[in-house]
Amino acid sequence: MKPIYDRFLSSRINYIEPSPIRDAVAKIAAKSKTTKVISFAAGEPDPDVIPRELYGELAKEVFIKEKGSVNYSPADGVSELKIEIARFMAEYEGVKTGPDNIVVTLGGSQAIDILGRLILDPGDIVIVENPSYVNTILVWKHYGVRIIGVPMDDNGMVTEKLEDVVKRLRSEGKKLKLIYTIPTGQNPSGVTMSMDRRKHLLEIASRYDLLVAEDTAYNHLVYEPVDVKPLRSMDTEDRVIYIGSFSKIFGTGLRIGWLEAHPEIIGRVRVAKGPMDMCPPVPSQYIVLNLLRNKLYRPIREKAVAEYKSKRDIMIAAIEKHLTGLKHTRPVAGMFILLWLPEDIDGRAFSDQLLEKYNVAVIPAAAFYTDETGRNVIRLNFSMSEKDLIEEGIRRISMLLKESKTPTP
Amino acid sequence: MKPIYDRFLSSRINYIEPSPIRDAVAKIAAKSKTTKVISFAAGEPDPDVIPRELYGELAKEVFIKEKGSVNYSPADGVSELKIEIARFMAEYEGVKTGPDNIVVTLGGSQAIDILGRLILDPGDIVIVENPSYVNTILVWKHYGVRIIGVPMDDNGMVTEKLEDVVKRLRSEGKKLKLIYTIPTGQNPSGVTMSMDRRKHLLEIASRYDLLVAEDTAYNHLVYEPVDVKPLRSMDTEDRVIYIGSFSKIFGTGLRIGWLEAHPEIIGRVRVAKGPMDMCPPVPSQYIVLNLLRNKLYRPIREKAVAEYKSKRDIMIAAIEKHLTGLKHTRPVAGMFILLWLPEDIDGRAFSDQLLEKYNVAVIPAAAFYTDETGRNVIRLNFSMSEKDLIEEGIRRISMLLKESKTPTP
Repeated sequence: MKPIYDRFLSSRINYIEPSPIRDAVAKIAAKSKTTKVISFAAGEPDPDVIPRELYGELAKEVFIKEKGSVNYSPADGVSELKIEIARFMAEYEGVKTGPDNIVVTLGGSQAIDILGRLILDPGDIVIVENPSYVNTILVWKHYGVRIIGVPMDDNGMVTEKLEDVVKRLRSEGKKLKLIYTIPTGQNPSGVTMSMDRRKHLLEIASRYDLLVAEDTAYNHLVYEPVDVKPLRSMDTEDRVIYIGSFSKIFGTGLRIGWLEAHPEIIGRVRVAKGPMDMCPPVPSQYIVLNLLRNKLYRPIREKAVAEYKSKRDIMIAAIEKHLTGLKHTRPVAGMFILLWLPEDIDGRAFSDQLLEKYNVAVIPAAAFYTDETGRNVIRLNFSMSEKDLIEEGIRRISMLLKESKTPTP
Repeated sequence: MKPIYDRFLSSRINYIEPSPIRDAVAKIAAKSKTTKVISFAAGEPDPDVIPRELYGELAKEVFIKEKGSVNYSPADGVSELKIEIARFMAEYEGVKTGPDNIVVTLGGSQAIDILGRLILDPGDIVIVENPSYVNTILVWKHYGVRIIGVPMDDNGMVTEKLEDVVKRLRSEGKKLKLIYTIPTGQNPSGVTMSMDRRKHLLEIASRYDLLVAEDTAYNHLVYEPVDVKPLRSMDTEDRVIYIGSFSKIFGTGLRIGWLEAHPEIIGRVRVAKGPMDMCPPVPSQYIVLNLLRNKLYRPIREKAVAEYKSKRDIMIAAIEKHLTGLKHTRPVAGMFILLWLPEDIDGRAFSDQLLEKYNVAVIPAAAFYTDETGRNVIRLNFSMSEKDLIEEGIRRISMLLKESKTPTP
């Protein structure tokens, strides 16, 4: 049917693309309605790890005690929450900051969108890790930008290649302002950037006068001692914009994230944000405020870390047992493992067959790549998987792989 | 100090303006910290009218019963909530619709912003009532549009003048796609558009091939029987995009609004919205879902209407007693009264003096006007005022007015 409203749409509509994993997600949702599916497709914490009863008690108290819970908060967030977030950043991130450097947002997602609105013009280039978080790519494309990916290895973005790319783009006169990175427990790779690379990235930002957007969503889901610090904590030139989120510890549903940066940037964010949404959800803000004040971040995180670590270990053991020889990442942080299928296998078709025939859900990782190199890669989530079914899910992947090796007529 | 980050900002930054009432609001907040201020400056419901204890019970139940409360919902909202909203629109608005025509948003504000993203290009023109809601104007300006206001009278937007404006713009070859209206209990005027004008507006939209964004935030704060229907309920050509909000009945803090329109438009909204914010706040969605399911909308609204009606009556009586002869609106709906000061008085300076000298807070309405005609107008809110202090506040306005008439050296 001919679209009848296209004459009313902005030219921006050409940049607004459906998520490349939308179909996969829809198929999984449909199948799950009728069949028991072993899912490695999620991208969020396990709700059974989150103390929902405690949230219920807190919410009840908040509504009774805080008249303001049913009114607007300031557009940049409840001021006590901004103070607690500043304390959080000092305690857990080694970032000395204050409430005036902070704007509370609707999760990290809105923080990323607002940054795009402030910084990105059509034709601008943004550098990301290849692969990178698909929703950041999608929402920044709304602003008409071109996304360029820099390859990763086990130590994160290969910063030598980053410098090559930056040099080339500058020599071509391209408009480049921003590097986006998820340095710890990256989505989708699970990789954590080494300290050397972090320092090198900051040097490059300084040398070429670039801003860095540091997405810290997975900073605290860390399963082994690692010697890394947030870029923002080493940022002597105020080039790093810290994208914070409580989603991966307190749950995604509350939708509380934040931006922290130099007050001049944050001042602009504050001005832009006011009419965009009036304020973040106020009961959610008060729940997070109370969790932080009552020192509940650490125990909630510790429970999550213990649980996800054990799931990760089971998944890696199963991969090494059933999928011997296949390349995969070994995350020390985050929620995801990338698995490379044999080169001649298309990850999208494989994921479809796996769901259809074996009732196992994975996400084809091609969507996260800025080029064709991820065609045969799939993303496995362990945080929300059912512990007892992880090995069986991996075994079924190996069964489909064996079949795929037999040529079909 | 020279801004140091300007080199990184998008060209859009020229369109991102601070709210023209920001300074007034900041002064009121500062003064309120040290002094008892009689405030007519608010723009939201009275938290004492809202059953916060009940919300607390519901929230507790939600967190315990709904695992999904701490996870993402679909980007367009919890599906049961969309069903309830469709029912709500049938029951209260006479709009026959279904969940596929609905996207749940972070209040009406985000709904308005998303519409801008989908529809508005730099250079486009949007027609609004003059005066109109300042945050809609501000956020649509982010998209580089020009805002043109059409005068209002006691029956709402003067649609004869609307047609003149549309004709002129079309003859000049201007890009005009959208009319924005708050037909019932308008902010800031409190005026409700008559049925004849509503029909005429729809005729004009049809004749000149325009979309209409109908902001229904105040549709259910109606204090006297009025014979009006939502534009969307009379919209035989699917030109109306319905902007819904529960903020004015259930409280602004929950941040639950929605867009309802032809599925082709809503499909585009759905695609755009996914990566912008992942989903609306999930506990808030479940609280609203339970309020609707438990048939609590009507009693909560009835309590609010009774309370605000009595405040409105007190305020109008006080204006007629103490400010005889001054023009003001007589709202049958909404939360606001506009008051015209004598022509030679500047509403901004008057509001400042009123706060400083008499501890009464009002909002200068100039910010809501698209031209200079509102220079001497102030906006008075009654919904959040303290009933016992309304007359005293109005009396203080009259005292300052008397002083203002005495020429000062």
